[in-house]
Amino acid sequence: RANTGPTAQVLYDFTAEPGNNELSVREGETVTVIDQTVGGGWIQAQNSSGQTGLVPEGYLQVSSHQSEPEFSSSHILLQMTNRKDCLLLSPSAVEDDDGEWDDDWDDQSVGSYRGNEQMDLEGGASGWSSHGPSVKISLNKFPFSKGPSPEVFLLAKPPANNRDRLTVYMGEVGPVWLYPPSPLDCVIADPKKESKLYGLKSFIEYQIIPNTTNRPVNHRYKHFDWLYERLLEKFGSVLPIPSLPDKQVTGRFDEDFIRMRMERLQAWMSRMCRHPVVSQSDVFQLFLTYRDEREWKAGKRKAEKDETVGPMIFSLIEPEAAELNVTEVEQRCEHYNRFTKSMEDVVRELLNVGHTHWKRCTGPLPKEYERIGRAFRNLSTVFNSSKYPGEETLTDALTAAGKTYEEIAQIVAQQPQKDLHFLLETNSEYKGLLGCFPEIITVHKAAVEKVKESDRLVSAGKITNNDKKTLNHRISCMSYCLQAEMNHFHSNRIYDYNRVMQLYLEQQVTFYQQIVDKLRAALNQFTTL
Amino acid sequence: RANTGPTAQVLYDFTAEPGNNELSVREGETVTVIDQTVGGGWIQAQNSSGQTGLVPEGYLQVSSHQSEPEFSSSHILLQMTNRKDCLLLSPSAVEDDDGEWDDDWDDQSVGSYRGNEQMDLEGGASGWSSHGPSVKISLNKFPFSKGPSPEVFLLAKPPANNRDRLTVYMGEVGPVWLYPPSPLDCVIADPKKESKLYGLKSFIEYQIIPNTTNRPVNHRYKHFDWLYERLLEKFGSVLPIPSLPDKQVTGRFDEDFIRMRMERLQAWMSRMCRHPVVSQSDVFQLFLTYRDEREWKAGKRKAEKDETVGPMIFSLIEPEAAELNVTEVEQRCEHYNRFTKSMEDVVRELLNVGHTHWKRCTGPLPKEYERIGRAFRNLSTVFNSSKYPGEETLTDALTAAGKTYEEIAQIVAQQPQKDLHFLLETNSEYKGLLGCFPEIITVHKAAVEKVKESDRLVSAGKITNNDKKTLNHRISCMSYCLQAEMNHFHSNRIYDYNRVMQLYLEQQVTFYQQIVDKLRAALNQFTTL
Repeated sequence: RANTGPTAQVLYDFTAEPGNNELSVREGETVTVIDQTVGGGWIQAQNSSGQTGLVPEGYLQVSSHQSEPEFSSSHILLQMTNRKDCLLLSPSAVEDDDGEWDDDWDDQSVGSYRGNEQMDLEGGASGWSSHGPSVKISLNKFPFSKGPSPEVFLLAKPPANNRDRLTVYMGEVGPVWLYPPSPLDCVIADPKKESKLYGLKSFIEYQIIPNTTNRPVNHRYKHFDWLYERLLEKFGSVLPIPSLPDKQVTGRFDEDFIRMRMERLQAWMSRMCRHPVVSQSDVFQLFLTYRDEREWKAGKRKAEKDETVGPMIFSLIEPEAAELNVTEVEQRCEHYNRFTKSMEDVVRELLNVGHTHWKRCTGPLPKEYERIGRAFRNLSTVFNSSKYPGEETLTDALTAAGKTYEEIAQIVAQQPQKDLHFLLETNSEYKGLLGCFPEIITVHKAAVEKVKESDRLVSAGKITNNDKKTLNHRISCMSYCLQAEMNHFHSNRIYDYNRVMQLYLEQQVTFYQQIVDKLRAALNQFTTL
Repeated sequence: RANTGPTAQVLYDFTAEPGNNELSVREGETVTVIDQTVGGGWIQAQNSSGQTGLVPEGYLQVSSHQSEPEFSSSHILLQMTNRKDCLLLSPSAVEDDDGEWDDDWDDQSVGSYRGNEQMDLEGGASGWSSHGPSVKISLNKFPFSKGPSPEVFLLAKPPANNRDRLTVYMGEVGPVWLYPPSPLDCVIADPKKESKLYGLKSFIEYQIIPNTTNRPVNHRYKHFDWLYERLLEKFGSVLPIPSLPDKQVTGRFDEDFIRMRMERLQAWMSRMCRHPVVSQSDVFQLFLTYRDEREWKAGKRKAEKDETVGPMIFSLIEPEAAELNVTEVEQRCEHYNRFTKSMEDVVRELLNVGHTHWKRCTGPLPKEYERIGRAFRNLSTVFNSSKYPGEETLTDALTAAGKTYEEIAQIVAQQPQKDLHFLLETNSEYKGLLGCFPEIITVHKAAVEKVKESDRLVSAGKITNNDKKTLNHRISCMSYCLQAEMNHFHSNRIYDYNRVMQLYLEQQVTFYQQIVDKLRAALNQFTTL
């Protein structure tokens, strides 16, 4: 079954440009992924009629999910909606990155988020209607409901654990996280093919070297995946935790695939290292600095038992600033919502035009320059056969001009890898980040609604006046937290886009300058008249 | 009927690129020409099912011929084959450039080449089989047969007219024409819309100023056409006389059409001026220097009565060099044949890739740059809405980058007019010239065959030994003539291609340099990290 490749859900309609090896797909359609390493943001896919072709990466939601998931529930209700990623990554239903069922996933280290109680579907089955209402869904870790239920944090007694406190303080730009004195970073390198079970199972192991210890630790993709799930579980309600680079069953040992995955894992890890909350968390530190197998296993078990996850994370926030009123919180929330939504639209637009441009630059355009070059060279060959004396200057110049356009063809074809690549990678990362915000916003909005009800709840005798004060204090906490995160996002965004635009333009200047130089040299071969 | 536009024969299969407003056509199909001024070597055409779209100029043989031509003949047998142009331009069957039947054509000035005797179809009807054997063909001026019959010149007594002698002498590169001491040239300018018949008929009159007299003469397109026919009739067996820019019925008074036609008439006239034989001929001099209507009308009548036309032109050649043997003549002829055929193939290749490139540069490519530019600007707009302090530097730089790509889009779209245009025009001219050679070669080959038969003809008592000597002398004359013409062609070709390649590369360098400068300015707006 591993050979059939992962499937993908089509997110938007895509109409193939004829003659360009593209595949037209309709929103909602399921296709089989044939090759994820074609590059340029394209995926080779096959539709149900057996037709294959390229589809833009951004139009597909790839999963390696292939079995009918089971329905189960959990004892803590999380406020997440439409988190399809999580569904698809739930351990009991997923293939690991080795392309085989990996029993490591089923070992003893099950955390508090895994249980068998019937999930409390507060929003009713209707919440799932758009995704097929009666399908059985695997929810071992993340039970979902349509209406988030923020009471868990708003009224629950938070665990008083001073060591884990997350400090938000007032900086120049407003509420900000407390940043560590020196920034954490790591280098991922040296991917090695390793085996276990006497060579029956092969996998790639990456070396990760954090700048704090300078001591390499080894991890497989599935360890990154485990880390991702822990971070999502713990911080997903407050921080955008972008997905890992896609899983892939076929071609996992191709050099290009390994290079690309490593580059994306590096980008993901660097982003996580830059985050003051994520980088300081126990689970992240464990991943980067564990000293031996024993410490790793013990740390894993501890992390999976962590109860301060989901909305409970807000209980760790310690704002030093004045309490906010609910209207202000609501307005800020709405503003962030609008901003992240508009940015997501633009990022998608950039990705789309980038993918189209990539295809033109690697396909028809260099072919045309090659044809121009060949035509000049053929002209030179024919002229050479004229037997007319003294036209070597012209024929030599024509040959040189021909070669120049053939070289330009190559430069053009290789260029996207040098400039568009980073522009697209950065925007893909941001697409992933921005895709996390709707959920974060939803958690906040649900909390706001709850707090707005508080007067009524007091009148109805459902909560006390003290409870109401607690609610107000906590919504204010949540808002500071969101503001700190937005400020973190903004400062990173400015840095990232400034950097990527510079890289892009620098490479574009170099590219065009190279063409100018080549053409000028070709021009100089012709006799001045 | 004038509004239906001229028709065109499809010369080669052409498959439309989907989504590019192109029209697929099959060799042999007849289409209606809708617009010849679209530029970039494209013609807007309509097929018999009413579908319209663009077809490459080079794939069509455009004519304004719309009536069933009449069959007639002439008293002198010319050695021309497949001269479809001439057929279509024959005066009694053609519309003039005013889009109306012009009685000027039917005035008294009919020359010796116009007659009504039954043509002597030496090659039999089979010679026409590929073009429809039983169709009635208008041959008022040019009777055609498949097998050229060079006896007219080879054995006829040539008119002894010393004044008209065409001298071929041995130059450094071999036989060359005698060039006039100072080269003739002319400038075509100042196209004016004129009327006659009290405004019932309108036409464009061009001013032509030769460098010899500096005195402007006025001519309509149909006068150029008359000149073309005289030159073709007189020199077509020995010199390539390229066709005039295509006739066109609709849009004749559009500024773009007039500009393009004038540019092409200029190129045609300059090429004719550069030719030592054409430029010195009475008819050409008449066209450039007539002083009044009376002189023009008299000159016209005289030119139309000229009897030293067709293969008789060879009788004017005066070679100073040694006699050649027939094998040598044959080998040279074969070599020129191969050369002109291969060059025609390359020229066609260049035109094809040029047309494709033109379309890409004016269509999808600038659209893509525009989209990239717009995406950068949209990113700037969204970033501006963040309310995060101090990101003006980034958003200003992003706006500038966006504008830069929008400007690049415009530069890209306008570029083909600046560089590809001349490359394509020059190659179109050469395609026209090269298209004349097969006929010239055929005349020579037929003469060679006749001379090779001479021994047999002497034995059979059909010709005398003296006749045989005359044959050998005259084939040698013809060969010198062809060699002189090929050397003229080669030297012009070297000049023209050197010039056009320099122009093209210069403009390409300027184009890419402009992009470099713009991108560098955009890059400098970003903060150095």
